[in-house]
Amino acid sequence: MKQFLSASDPEDPRALVKKALVLKANPFQSSAGKNRTLGLVFFNPSLRTRMSTQKAAFNLGMNVMVMNVDKDGWKIEFNDGTVMNGDTQEHIKDAVSVMSQYVDILGVRTFPSLQNKEDDYSEKVISQFTRYSTVPVVSLESATRHPLQSLADLITIEELGIKRPKVVLSWAPHPKILPQAVPNSFLEWIKITDADITLACPQGYELADEFTNGVKIEHDQYHAFEGADIIYAKNWSSYVHYGQKPEVKSDWTITAEKMALTNKGKFMHCLPIRRNVVATDEVVDNSIIYRQAKNREYAAQAVLQEILENL
Amino acid sequence: MKQFLSASDPEDPRALVKKALVLKANPFQSSAGKNRTLGLVFFNPSLRTRMSTQKAAFNLGMNVMVMNVDKDGWKIEFNDGTVMNGDTQEHIKDAVSVMSQYVDILGVRTFPSLQNKEDDYSEKVISQFTRYSTVPVVSLESATRHPLQSLADLITIEELGIKRPKVVLSWAPHPKILPQAVPNSFLEWIKITDADITLACPQGYELADEFTNGVKIEHDQYHAFEGADIIYAKNWSSYVHYGQKPEVKSDWTITAEKMALTNKGKFMHCLPIRRNVVATDEVVDNSIIYRQAKNREYAAQAVLQEILENL
Amino acid sequence: MKQFLSASDPEDPRALVKKALVLKANPFQSSAGKNRTLGLVFFNPSLRTRMSTQKAAFNLGMNVMVMNVDKDGWKIEFNDGTVMNGDTQEHIKDAVSVMSQYVDILGVRTFPSLQNKEDDYSEKVISQFTRYSTVPVVSLESATRHPLQSLADLITIEELGIKRPKVVLSWAPHPKILPQAVPNSFLEWIKITDADITLACPQGYELADEFTNGVKIEHDQYHAFEGADIIYAKNWSSYVHYGQKPEVKSDWTITAEKMALTNKGKFMHCLPIRRNVVATDEVVDNSIIYRQAKNREYAAQAVLQEILENL
Repeated sequence: MKQFLSASDPEDPRALVKKALVLKANPFQSSAGKNRTLGLVFFNPSLRTRMSTQKAAFNLGMNVMVMNVDKDGWKIEFNDGTVMNGDTQEHIKDAVSVMSQYVDILGVRTFPSLQNKEDDYSEKVISQFTRYSTVPVVSLESATRHPLQSLADLITIEELGIKRPKVVLSWAPHPKILPQAVPNSFLEWIKITDADITLACPQGYELADEFTNGVKIEHDQYHAFEGADIIYAKNWSSYVHYGQKPEVKSDWTITAEKMALTNKGKFMHCLPIRRNVVATDEVVDNSIIYRQAKNREYAAQAVLQEILENL
Repeated sequence: MKQFLSASDPEDPRALVKKALVLKANPFQSSAGKNRTLGLVFFNPSLRTRMSTQKAAFNLGMNVMVMNVDKDGWKIEFNDGTVMNGDTQEHIKDAVSVMSQYVDILGVRTFPSLQNKEDDYSEKVISQFTRYSTVPVVSLESATRHPLQSLADLITIEELGIKRPKVVLSWAPHPKILPQAVPNSFLEWIKITDADITLACPQGYELADEFTNGVKIEHDQYHAFEGADIIYAKNWSSYVHYGQKPEVKSDWTITAEKMALTNKGKFMHCLPIRRNVVATDEVVDNSIIYRQAKNREYAAQAVLQEILENL
Repeated sequence: MKQFLSASDPEDPRALVKKALVLKANPFQSSAGKNRTLGLVFFNPSLRTRMSTQKAAFNLGMNVMVMNVDKDGWKIEFNDGTVMNGDTQEHIKDAVSVMSQYVDILGVRTFPSLQNKEDDYSEKVISQFTRYSTVPVVSLESATRHPLQSLADLITIEELGIKRPKVVLSWAPHPKILPQAVPNSFLEWIKITDADITLACPQGYELADEFTNGVKIEHDQYHAFEGADIIYAKNWSSYVHYGQKPEVKSDWTITAEKMALTNKGKFMHCLPIRRNVVATDEVVDNSIIYRQAKNREYAAQAVLQEILENL
């Protein structure tokens, strides 16, 4: 594996899931990271991703350098040919070329603008990292995808051992404007497994075709939940009315009452979760969200190890 | 030892002091930290605590992850049952449950509000860490105690080798409103040693009964200093008039003249120190404060090692 | 080597260049850093210096602690005898004495005020670090010098293998007020090699005599470039009109047209570079700036290793 930006990067994504489970059983089996350094660049704050990825690197014996890029402190120029006598201090070409020289793998987290759909869906920021980096790039979440989260989700589902599970990705309320990265990516990855997948969302919250192709779309949350083995909840802003929050008239908060419609379904969420907004306390407290979060560590470790073995 | 929040956590606190001195003589004797990770969560900035604890972990071969929680950047919900559609992004239950999964020991620094005595003295924040963490929690200073500092203080006093020293904990001036954690904790720990302990403070600055039980209280600083072997200086805000600074009419700054009343007494302070406010340059420059700071490393190492050996 | 602040600290600076090249060929040959800790203190943000120095320490097996000193969060008192009842929280004497106890080598980055020439050129800040530190101090850039950058520059020039190269240090435009540290330091270091060195700058941008002694000064950039093997570009503010930006009438941006005057000259810059202000894209894209940045790692490693071997 030469980079990890989406489900199409691993040669065999299902094998990667299995590999992660082997690592979970015995995390300290490899010293592939000896004398290797992981650089983690955050354009946005991160807790879970930073800790789980750092821990994964430690498990492999890697050194880790974390760079929190304060957008105000280090303004980056993304456009070519600019006369840089304004705010921007360094061109992305130079920044990435240099940073990548000091590390063996470069992880980067970026967020969408949620204002310019074309910039976001062309992955304007992370694509410059892959373009200029001299070492493999790992996405720690990009404008449109969150592949380490999705890989952890697949590991968690695999652990449940359900044959052809009925999986419902359900939109849920949230007070803020959020990216589509997690749901996009979840659809992209779940499709490579043997699952029956439904997207449940209010009108106006459908995701981009490239992710929903072949996915059932339901606008009735109650109907979607019937017989589900897994409810994967997440809020996102509108793709069609890009970055907006069209009004939703019914209540999409996930409740115990709605969970009762499922086939003893497991509740999943990528965290952080707004309790009693996305889902009630009762639902969250009876969920598998902590296992899911723990699996972030082994998802990252499987990815790093596979990349290290190919250096 | 399963956690380290107060003097009642170590099975034998005096043995812990001895252990720290053994480690000081030979810091690299143990590899108990191999493949182990320490997570350090700071709700407030820290220099000394972070460096000394990190160094202690390195001495044991541990990996370290530092999380600086910017209160504005990652607002945490501490109350149960809240409908989280406001400012708070993640419930403490979920945050701690997840973080603790990525580490073997979780260190956390929190500060008191100094506005709500009940919240502070019930240790509202750090108690949620111990409640939800799946791994041992180490206090890097909490609302009412600073046990790593106090352990370092005891190590420093032990090194002096004075039989039943006369120890004076003296209030001193400071321009800011400060917590009572350091003096509370010092009293809690010094009581387990064989020392003659006096609390010297202006009227209105007495500490909570649970800490001053059995401690002589003096309101005349000159009288308190007579014959003292150790002067431990610190400012704190009022406990009775909670978080306030009742007016103090006499000058409590510690001077060479006052130190001359002691039995060639050693001056101690936990740092950072406001020179010529808490104590004069002359007093500070003839003190054992740097040795005390250095002992923070071995205090932390003794605690981490004892916890690691019991995992 | 007991400290690394300027070209006069290494016993044999030319040997240090050679040593760095040996390390570049095989970075993991030494375990001199085992059980050793490097502390890096940044009073100003840093990307390149932090990453390259951290990587160098990792190559040697050292642990690294990074302290970002937010000037607002931790205000330091630099003057002796102050009654510290104002903004400053800790005296530099105490801060450095304590920090240095937790590490084996202390790196520190400070910047000039660019307002008080005397304070800056007496190295008011970093000199307090060397005064109070109990361990060797390494400059990660100070008010007047950037020795790790200059050592990396010499390594890069050495790799070119040009016999007595004609080197031109050329001033170039920039929208901000910048320190003189990089050009000062470059002159200080290049003088110890066998090079023909010219300083090209507009009237009013001459550097301090201690650095320009024995250096040709040219105010005609075109003339200076003729036959040059190396063009080292950098902006700096005026030394004579201290910290100001006297008006420059001609265009000092480095262009391909100007580079054509040289002897197939190589373009160097310490980065970050303002493209199409300091130099055009064409010049930057045909430069050796990335190699130069990569050599920062081996410069730091050579310095750290030499210091470690003398502990």
